[in-house]
Amino acid sequence: MRVNGEPTRPLRSKDGRVFVIDQRQLPHRLQVMPLDDMAAVRQAIAEMWVRGAPLIGATAAYGMALQAARDATDNGLQAAARMLESARPTAVNLAWAVRRVLKITLAQPVPRRAAAAWAEAEAIAEEDVAVNAAIGSHGLPIIEAIARSRPGPVRVLTHCNAGWLATVDWGTATAPLYQAHAAGIPLQVWVDETRPRNQGASLTAWELGHEGVPHTVIADNAGGHLMQRGQVDLVIVGCDRVTARGDACNKIGTYLKALAARDNGVPFYVAMPTSTLDLSLSDGVKEVPIEERPAREVTHITGRTQGGQMMEVQLTPKGSAAANPAFDVTPARLVTGFITEQGVVAADEAALRALKAPSG
Amino acid sequence: MRVNGEPTRPLRSKDGRVFVIDQRQLPHRLQVMPLDDMAAVRQAIAEMWVRGAPLIGATAAYGMALQAARDATDNGLQAAARMLESARPTAVNLAWAVRRVLKITLAQPVPRRAAAAWAEAEAIAEEDVAVNAAIGSHGLPIIEAIARSRPGPVRVLTHCNAGWLATVDWGTATAPLYQAHAAGIPLQVWVDETRPRNQGASLTAWELGHEGVPHTVIADNAGGHLMQRGQVDLVIVGCDRVTARGDACNKIGTYLKALAARDNGVPFYVAMPTSTLDLSLSDGVKEVPIEERPAREVTHITGRTQGGQMMEVQLTPKGSAAANPAFDVTPARLVTGFITEQGVVAADEAALRALKAPSG
Repeated sequence: MRVNGEPTRPLRSKDGRVFVIDQRQLPHRLQVMPLDDMAAVRQAIAEMWVRGAPLIGATAAYGMALQAARDATDNGLQAAARMLESARPTAVNLAWAVRRVLKITLAQPVPRRAAAAWAEAEAIAEEDVAVNAAIGSHGLPIIEAIARSRPGPVRVLTHCNAGWLATVDWGTATAPLYQAHAAGIPLQVWVDETRPRNQGASLTAWELGHEGVPHTVIADNAGGHLMQRGQVDLVIVGCDRVTARGDACNKIGTYLKALAARDNGVPFYVAMPTSTLDLSLSDGVKEVPIEERPAREVTHITGRTQGGQMMEVQLTPKGSAAANPAFDVTPARLVTGFITEQGVVAADEAALRALKAPSG
Repeated sequence: MRVNGEPTRPLRSKDGRVFVIDQRQLPHRLQVMPLDDMAAVRQAIAEMWVRGAPLIGATAAYGMALQAARDATDNGLQAAARMLESARPTAVNLAWAVRRVLKITLAQPVPRRAAAAWAEAEAIAEEDVAVNAAIGSHGLPIIEAIARSRPGPVRVLTHCNAGWLATVDWGTATAPLYQAHAAGIPLQVWVDETRPRNQGASLTAWELGHEGVPHTVIADNAGGHLMQRGQVDLVIVGCDRVTARGDACNKIGTYLKALAARDNGVPFYVAMPTSTLDLSLSDGVKEVPIEERPAREVTHITGRTQGGQMMEVQLTPKGSAAANPAFDVTPARLVTGFITEQGVVAADEAALRALKAPSG
């Protein structure tokens, strides 16, 4: 998608080098950083220069490729895979992408491994773009139907950033929005701030602004009220892992919006590349490991001073503890449907198991 | 309650003068400000130096008393009442307290009005303390029953600040907590940050810390997840207005926690001084006016820099709009009970109408 009118991606490769947008600086500064080896890739994932399940997967794939260019032995590659997989525990795409590159690469003789790993990373990145474009195409009719049903903009609420910054391009939850906007359907997007890391306020709002999509940032607390007052037509969120029965693990707070959507009869869709499906799990609340992130993300926040500096300030009293679970699980019963690259499917085990497995 | 071991109230009168804690400076600075006339009182309410329905009411009562000392004519008092009532639109206590002082004062000949108004403001403040102490006594058995049922601390989630800083003393939602703590019952309080104004992170955490009550600040997004994982025994929140059928208007985001509590079988109590009951309304979602506050409360935030300065930073991209509804309505069907100074009552019109009306 576009930044200041220029086509831009959060992950880009050129001449054997890898570059990412340091998303911690957004929305205040657009800074592109080179990642020169596997350790740099792991750091970028662990410290959330890049985030979002699909983007983490594609970036980790390049991490494997950078490793293969330096040490393509079985031991070297397997150690790199373990290092990369441990960078973030919740997103299934990370392990999926790393294992995919590892398998293809180990199948080659050592001298061909660097080229094979690079080609596979490139393939994963381009497939992500295609998958998200297809999610957009399958989600578009949902928005078109609402637009046809009444005058005025279609009012969509989204949580966190499942936008192009969370993928290689298009985004997952945002792909239908960008396609609807391109098709001339008037939109009004409610952007959940998404505490504690504020990915909605800092990333989704920034993306939508650069693409010219009308949007309004709200506190995470506000969505239920807006639904009660009939001001939300549709919720679309992303996901980090979906179980066989359709329980959807996504950014902390998603579950609360799903409850409010159900209570007010608002459709609640989860945009899901099928690579996010983990058929080995069933009960999401019991079985999905939830990352506990540093308390400092709750007690402190970084923003832009009036003078234009980035500044961190403390919000809590000295001595008060904080907890920071990063994800929650929305039970399948609250999900209207999954928008996948293969079409919209019900939150139902038979329907999810009938999806074709992604390559890898 | 105590600050650094010293008994402290957020509103204090002495020798005909009125002093309040400027709560905008908390938790980083404890600053007491004099309010010398009605206009200063109105400013303190409108700009949220003081906040919380009971404290707003008591402070406004002193605003009427300060006015009566300067201009005790019918016109002067009636104009002051209108000015004060318009400072915040949602809390019913504000109008209730102002009308109570106005009525008592107008019933006196002009020369006696200043003294009558002052006495009535003092009575309102002291009654608030007694009401909250009684709410604590009636809420305590709920916590005792949980403590008896299993080992370990009683884990209570609260939203916003319905603490002593929101009242003249004790708080409403916190009164049962402070009484349980004094009775030696181990507590673990989950403190919702409460964006956008962060009253939980800045006020409730500060209060609980000074009183020695174990607590953990969480993002507003986290409460549903904690309930899903069985880590919340009880929710207690305050309220700004309750309708005849028991719909409870409280800080934005309360409704989302009530939905999660219902979905997970967690008791959800609303601490309610009966002065907060508005029997003239029935359907809270349709009938309670919801204050829309400035967008800047969402787009910017103030905290403490490492150097100890108070600094405001921007969180959102330039050009992104923000909306800021300040309250939402929790339907009666989600409320386990109201903890009032007259006892715990069901969220039921007959039970609420059977309560004695507060004086005034």
